[in-house]
Amino acid sequence: MPRYRIDIEYDGGPYAGWQRQADQPSVQAAIEQAIQAFCGEAVTIRGAGRTDAGVHARGQVAHFDLEREWQSDRVMAAINAHLTKAGETVAVTAAHSVEGGFDARFSATARHYLYLILNRRAPPALERGQVWHVARTLDTRAMHEAAQVLVGKHDFTTFRSVQCQAKSPVKTLDVLDVTRAGDIVEIRASARSFLHNQVRSMVGTLKRVGEGAWSADDVKAALEAADRAECGPVAPPDGLYLMRVDY
Amino acid sequence: MPRYRIDIEYDGGPYAGWQRQADQPSVQAAIEQAIQAFCGEAVTIRGAGRTDAGVHARGQVAHFDLEREWQSDRVMAAINAHLTKAGETVAVTAAHSVEGGFDARFSATARHYLYLILNRRAPPALERGQVWHVARTLDTRAMHEAAQVLVGKHDFTTFRSVQCQAKSPVKTLDVLDVTRAGDIVEIRASARSFLHNQVRSMVGTLKRVGEGAWSADDVKAALEAADRAECGPVAPPDGLYLMRVDY
Repeated sequence: MPRYRIDIEYDGGPYAGWQRQADQPSVQAAIEQAIQAFCGEAVTIRGAGRTDAGVHARGQVAHFDLEREWQSDRVMAAINAHLTKAGETVAVTAAHSVEGGFDARFSATARHYLYLILNRRAPPALERGQVWHVARTLDTRAMHEAAQVLVGKHDFTTFRSVQCQAKSPVKTLDVLDVTRAGDIVEIRASARSFLHNQVRSMVGTLKRVGEGAWSADDVKAALEAADRAECGPVAPPDGLYLMRVDY
Repeated sequence: MPRYRIDIEYDGGPYAGWQRQADQPSVQAAIEQAIQAFCGEAVTIRGAGRTDAGVHARGQVAHFDLEREWQSDRVMAAINAHLTKAGETVAVTAAHSVEGGFDARFSATARHYLYLILNRRAPPALERGQVWHVARTLDTRAMHEAAQVLVGKHDFTTFRSVQCQAKSPVKTLDVLDVTRAGDIVEIRASARSFLHNQVRSMVGTLKRVGEGAWSADDVKAALEAADRAECGPVAPPDGLYLMRVDY
């Protein structure tokens, strides 16, 4: 059966997350319904990252198999036409035929996330639901320095949701950069894979550093405690974007 | 009476435009209601640009007078609190006390607009309602060259809405730049003032150039015809942002 890879952009606001659920809207179900609407085949698609409710994507990747062979341009256009008709905030930005060995989730070698904080007194208007609003001015240099404590191979139990299903809490974090562009604080995180809620947990802790409440040493102590109770508050989903997946 | 200047950001999607109307939501009415909710005074605010339905702003400016003197920080926070409570997609990004001679509309020396085209095959997901989606690849170099025909002092009758109330169709366009940043085509327009629909009319014409249907000479001929019928299709409001007003 021909296998297809699609690259996906979405505003996660209206969805209970990537993963299909019995009685709530999901990005996965929206795309599966659009595929069925265009070719009549009921498929299950697999995504590279199971993003949570309200989390966005610019470069989510998924794969699926169809009985029939289609031109990939046609697949993209047809899925988008049905997504638009259904009023979904999801778009397929690319589609390709891939070998049967390609697996969007298990073939991935790196995942890249971006977290956006709108750091100004006024609440967001144009970016409502697409940033975390933090009114107090954050010290992004201190945040970036503290972030470097987390880079590398560590037991990330402190930054892991209690619902996390990963076998091991040990992960290698390749990048955790904090930069400022005007009122926007950008936090970039890259790793082969992440624990559930890891990026949002790290961002919540870095915000404490940015406010001056915590030092880099406090972050180090929290990491080494390997204790969920030592984590700062988990940042809201609004600011999180799955930007790219490498294969 | 103390006069206040406020800088305003909004997603124009939910509004029939800046200007207060009898039976439709407007940005002006949203702010006037928020001011009344915080201090009890019924005021009329005056904005620098009367943006159309669906047009956005990052740097609209307005002024108003209050009986009582308030700290401007307090004014900003209180208006934002009421705007948020009312679910408006409007935020006051700055507030200042100004001299009685300041008039947001008539003291303005320049207005700066940005128009965003999402130029890719896939429809927008994250930027839905905040860009114009054009699927066919646009030649932005040709657009920029043709745009220079419009820069300067001209009779802009061709690029003027039939509803325009300006006394004269002669305006001086200072900047009309077309650049590309990945999938996004950015068109920047600056002038002391614009005719009604002028930016969107110019963008619609430049899109024709970008598609290869028109040349710079065609744009010149359209301008010189001083005839509304010679204008390309008017670009939709979604992609237009009032970015800044100079005084």
